[in-house]
Amino acid sequence: MTYCVGLKLERGLVLASDTRTNAGLDNIASFTKMHVWERPGDRVLVLLSAGNLSISQSIINELGTSLDKVAEERPTLSTAEDMFQAARVIGEAIRRVYEIEGKALEQRAEAFIASFIFAGQIRGDSARLFQIYSEGNFIEATNDKPFFQIGEHKYGKPILDRVAGKDMRLGDAAKLLLVSFDSTLRSNLSVGMPIDLMVYQKDSLKITRQKRIEDNDEYFSGLSADWGNALKSAFESLPDFEI
Amino acid sequence: MTYCVGLKLERGLVLASDTRTNAGLDNIASFTKMHVWERPGDRVLVLLSAGNLSISQSIINELGTSLDKVAEERPTLSTAEDMFQAARVIGEAIRRVYEIEGKALEQRAEAFIASFIFAGQIRGDSARLFQIYSEGNFIEATNDKPFFQIGEHKYGKPILDRVAGKDMRLGDAAKLLLVSFDSTLRSNLSVGMPIDLMVYQKDSLKITRQKRIEDNDEYFSGLSADWGNALKSAFESLPDFEI
Repeated sequence: MTYCVGLKLERGLVLASDTRTNAGLDNIASFTKMHVWERPGDRVLVLLSAGNLSISQSIINELGTSLDKVAEERPTLSTAEDMFQAARVIGEAIRRVYEIEGKALEQRAEAFIASFIFAGQIRGDSARLFQIYSEGNFIEATNDKPFFQIGEHKYGKPILDRVAGKDMRLGDAAKLLLVSFDSTLRSNLSVGMPIDLMVYQKDSLKITRQKRIEDNDEYFSGLSADWGNALKSAFESLPDFEI
Repeated sequence: MTYCVGLKLERGLVLASDTRTNAGLDNIASFTKMHVWERPGDRVLVLLSAGNLSISQSIINELGTSLDKVAEERPTLSTAEDMFQAARVIGEAIRRVYEIEGKALEQRAEAFIASFIFAGQIRGDSARLFQIYSEGNFIEATNDKPFFQIGEHKYGKPILDRVAGKDMRLGDAAKLLLVSFDSTLRSNLSVGMPIDLMVYQKDSLKITRQKRIEDNDEYFSGLSADWGNALKSAFESLPDFEI
């Protein structure tokens, strides 16, 4: 499986994804699920992917791995004028890959499974966050619902439901996503380190911070241990149920 | 959906289940998923059920709603000599109901879905905890894995993974299950109040405490609010990610 999460804040965007890919339990590998396109001063686009790896790689390839791709008649990630149009570019790439791969997969009773979190900012537009479905349609995060999750999302949702708010500082939000990852990693083997983390400060039009957090990362190990202890203390501070 | 959890401790057993049943989103009702058989001084048996309500009700009916059921040739919950035999009685009841209902459901592409947590103590045997599958086979909790969950289990698992231990006091364990429920209730609409809670002190051979926790329960409301605040404080106490 996969776990990816994106959070939209007043101050910008924070995104994180794991890197575990498995085909059965004995065929495990690491692949990044975070794809970043940057043209400083003009646009920063981030796509997180879950689902069938062959499908998401085909879609990334279809989108072009860099913004230098020769312009086509239709809008591309390089030429999209705003984030909504860029989300539609991705939706259309998904549909083109479905045309090629979908039928053959379905004939073998394999579903065409791919879902995406897409976020970023294009000059003249605001920083925005979308969730894109395997059918190519999409929804946008609003103030009522500042985060999207894809993949193995349930373990890490309670802490997001409790703590996420659009007025968080970016460093605080990055910490929150890592705590949400920690809960998921502890409870589910199909989500694995390293974690790709990306922080984007609104209106900067360049990547603010991108970091691969490895297994032995000092901050993450400390966070995980501290969070375990803090949770236990928090639990102990509650009154017992009286028998 | 459903959420049920059972915890086996050195001091006894603690079990909890929600009561929400839904057939689609606009047909929601409350049904208990906790079934208790008690013959003080001889046996206390508790069965928590998840899955298709018509199937689990048929199985309960097959088992007999009281221990007064006239003895049959085969062992019953009334005559089983130990918990393993009692778990097998339940497994066989599941298989008999499958014989009656399974084919008709499968013809209509409805799966025969039912899963159970079964716990209790029979005089001469220890207090034990089982998980029983829809095929009628079962597994038993050991010291390495002191809890079982069925139904919508992912939201409430991280806190169990962090805190559950076989040496917990019973009141502490009841609090833990309620905190696990609180996380689930907040993140998933298909699990709903009231909660049925049951505490069994080892070797007492009678119900120690059984309580239906309603929506307006003072302890649970306080626990939920306190837990939210304690989580937020715990989160704030962690060092921010440095951008």
